[in-house]
Formats: sequence, structure tokens, C-alpha cells
Amino acid sequence: MRIALHYKNIDYEYRPIHLVKDGGEHRKEDYLSLNPKGEVPYFIDGTLKLSQSMAILSYIDEKWPSKPLFPSDRDLRSKCIQLSEIINSGIQPLQNLRVMQEVVKRFNCSDQEKKDWSSFWIHEGLSALEKELALFKGPFSMGDALTCVDLYLIPQMYNAKRFGVDLKKFPRLNEISEACLKLDPFIKADPKNQPDSPTDL
Amino acid sequence: MRIALHYKNIDYEYRPIHLVKDGGEHRKEDYLSLNPKGEVPYFIDGTLKLSQSMAILSYIDEKWPSKPLFPSDRDLRSKCIQLSEIINSGIQPLQNLRVMQEVVKRFNCSDQEKKDWSSFWIHEGLSALEKELALFKGPFSMGDALTCVDLYLIPQMYNAKRFGVDLKKFPRLNEISEACLKLDPFIKADPKNQPDSPTDL
Repeated sequence: MRIALHYKNIDYEYRPIHLVKDGGEHRKEDYLSLNPKGEVPYFIDGTLKLSQSMAILSYIDEKWPSKPLFPSDRDLRSKCIQLSEIINSGIQPLQNLRVMQEVVKRFNCSDQEKKDWSSFWIHEGLSALEKELALFKGPFSMGDALTCVDLYLIPQMYNAKRFGVDLKKFPRLNEISEACLKLDPFIKADPKNQPDSPTDL
Repeated sequence: MRIALHYKNIDYEYRPIHLVKDGGEHRKEDYLSLNPKGEVPYFIDGTLKLSQSMAILSYIDEKWPSKPLFPSDRDLRSKCIQLSEIINSGIQPLQNLRVMQEVVKRFNCSDQEKKDWSSFWIHEGLSALEKELALFKGPFSMGDALTCVDLYLIPQMYNAKRFGVDLKKFPRLNEISEACLKLDPFIKADPKNQPDSPTDL
């Protein structure tokens, strides 16, 4: 989401929600009254309040249509949603902090088992994505233009590294990663360049 | 997806992929060569091949625009994506068969613990959805017209029942469910009315 805002040069106010400090600010009453699901990211534009990154990115892309994040061709646009969802619904939900906490609490697993759980799902998802994206030629996921897929891929590659996934197996994903990480919006949105240090998109 | 096809009166050929029989037909080489992620649903229209229900539903809605599944107003459309994603990326990935199998394999948990894991995530997601959908008046999730949200909600309510979630806590969701289950596309798409008996959307 930060990448999209930077890419489209949209001014925004950033309000960090700390997921660990003090049991997690996202579990506090004032945040839950805004977003009952208690998750980040959360996006407010005037009276519109949105959670869920796919909804936010699709809104941003429609309201600020220059430099589109979704291809205009119907088939390619569907493909773009599919490839983004491989990360958004196929990887991210299984290895986010909330799920990890629940895995540890319920199954009393070790740090290594916790790490193995995350890296397993990331590896599964990225393997499928590597095959899908090998069908496209060009510096970015779907060819010569940046799309929503790249916006999901880069933070997920960052997470993959954090959980010790062997990224050498994914030459196409690395190629895309390198191309993206040369671009200003990705540099500005890098977790280490934020006032706090969240790790999600 | 079946509901959408019935709702829009689209002729389709249904090829059941059995998720349990013989270790799961979705894990076999011929299905994986088609869909490397090895998941259902999978949709083929001419040369276009799509996985991920959000991509499939959005494609179906664009190609067959009569009786739209997404509102035409930009803000409402984003809201529709958000509400659908609460199920698509917030509940479904955490309680599908593949994830349940991995939970059992890795953490050696009992049938009860497995059921508790599923019902916990369904309860979490439906609780958030209950609050969000209470803001809309009318028989369906977003008011007087059926949307994509209803197509996600009904199969998820079915799954909730299967995993013993107490649905009495969700009066708004029950109201919507009752309205939907009177409609032909939902009756035709009901798992018990399929030649096989899959439980996902």
C-alpha cells in the first residue's frame, strides 16, 4: 500500500500501528472500533474507510488512475488479480503475526517449528508464483509495466528472507525483485525507511 | 464460483476435483501442470486459465456484465472487495483442507484441536463481518442487490456450521443467509446438489 501511494505520488499521513508493543495496538479498543478485524493496513480517504489490501489498492488505482496498477485488458487484469491473490490469500494469511501467535499458543511449538511453518507456506506460494511469472518476459512480474503483483511480491520476498526461505530457487522472482528495488517507490516504502518498522505490505 | 455461474445463467462444464480421495486429485501431476498452486477452484474460458476465486469472479462479472456482482459506485465497489476479502483472505485460507492437514501433520493435534482451530478463525472473521454488514440495510450483504459478498458468505456459513460455530451470534449474517438460500443460484450451487460433494466456493 505504501508502495502504491509513493508510486502514484499521493500525499498521505502515515499512522503506525505497533503490532507487538504492549500486546499489539491493533487489538486495542480504539483501533478495533475503527476496524473490527483488527488488522493492518487500514486506509481512510474522507468518509471512506477500508481494510484489506486488495480493496485499498483497487480503490487507489481507480481514484488516481495515472500509472495503473492493473492492466486495462480484461484477461490480463484477471490474471493480475490471480497472481496478487497467490500472495494476498495464499501466503500472507498463513504467516502473519496474528496467525503465528495462535499457532504457538495452541500447539505449544518451538521457535524452529514456528519458523518452519511460515517458511513452508512462503515456499509453497513463491514456487507457484515462480512458475506463473516465468510465462511473462520483462523486468516486472507481468512484463514491462509495474503492476499490483510487484507490490505484493517485494514485501513477500522481504518476509521470505526473514524466515530463511532459500530464494536461489526463484530466479524469475529475483530478477523482478532486483528491477523493483531500483525504483524510488520501493526504496521509500522499505520497512527500514519507516519511522516504525512494520513488515507487512 | 458455481453460484456466480448459475446467477448469470452461464453454461459451464463442471469437472470435480476430489480433495480427499487417493491423497487428493489436486496434488496429482496432471492437475498441478495446469495449476501449480494445486488449489480449487480453477476456471478455464478459451485460452484463459484462472485460479483464485476473486480473479475468477471479477472476470465472470466483466465478461457477463448483466446482474453485476460488484457495485458500479467506486466507494461501494472497494467496500465490496473488502468485505469479500474478509472471507477470501481472512477466513478461507486458515481453515481449508490443505492447511488443516498441515496443522495435524506438524503439530500432531487431536480432532478436537483441529476443529477448534478452524472454528476459531471462522468465528473471528464472521464476527468482524457481522459488525460491517450491520451497517447495510436490506436482504443481502450490501443492501437490496446481491453482490460478490453474498457469494462468499453463504459457503462460509455452511462451513461454519460444519465446524460447530455458534451462528446464533450473527443475526445479520443469518438474515442474509436466509434471503440468499431462497434463491435458485444458491440452491443449485449447494454442495449437496453437486455430483461430488466439495465444500469450498
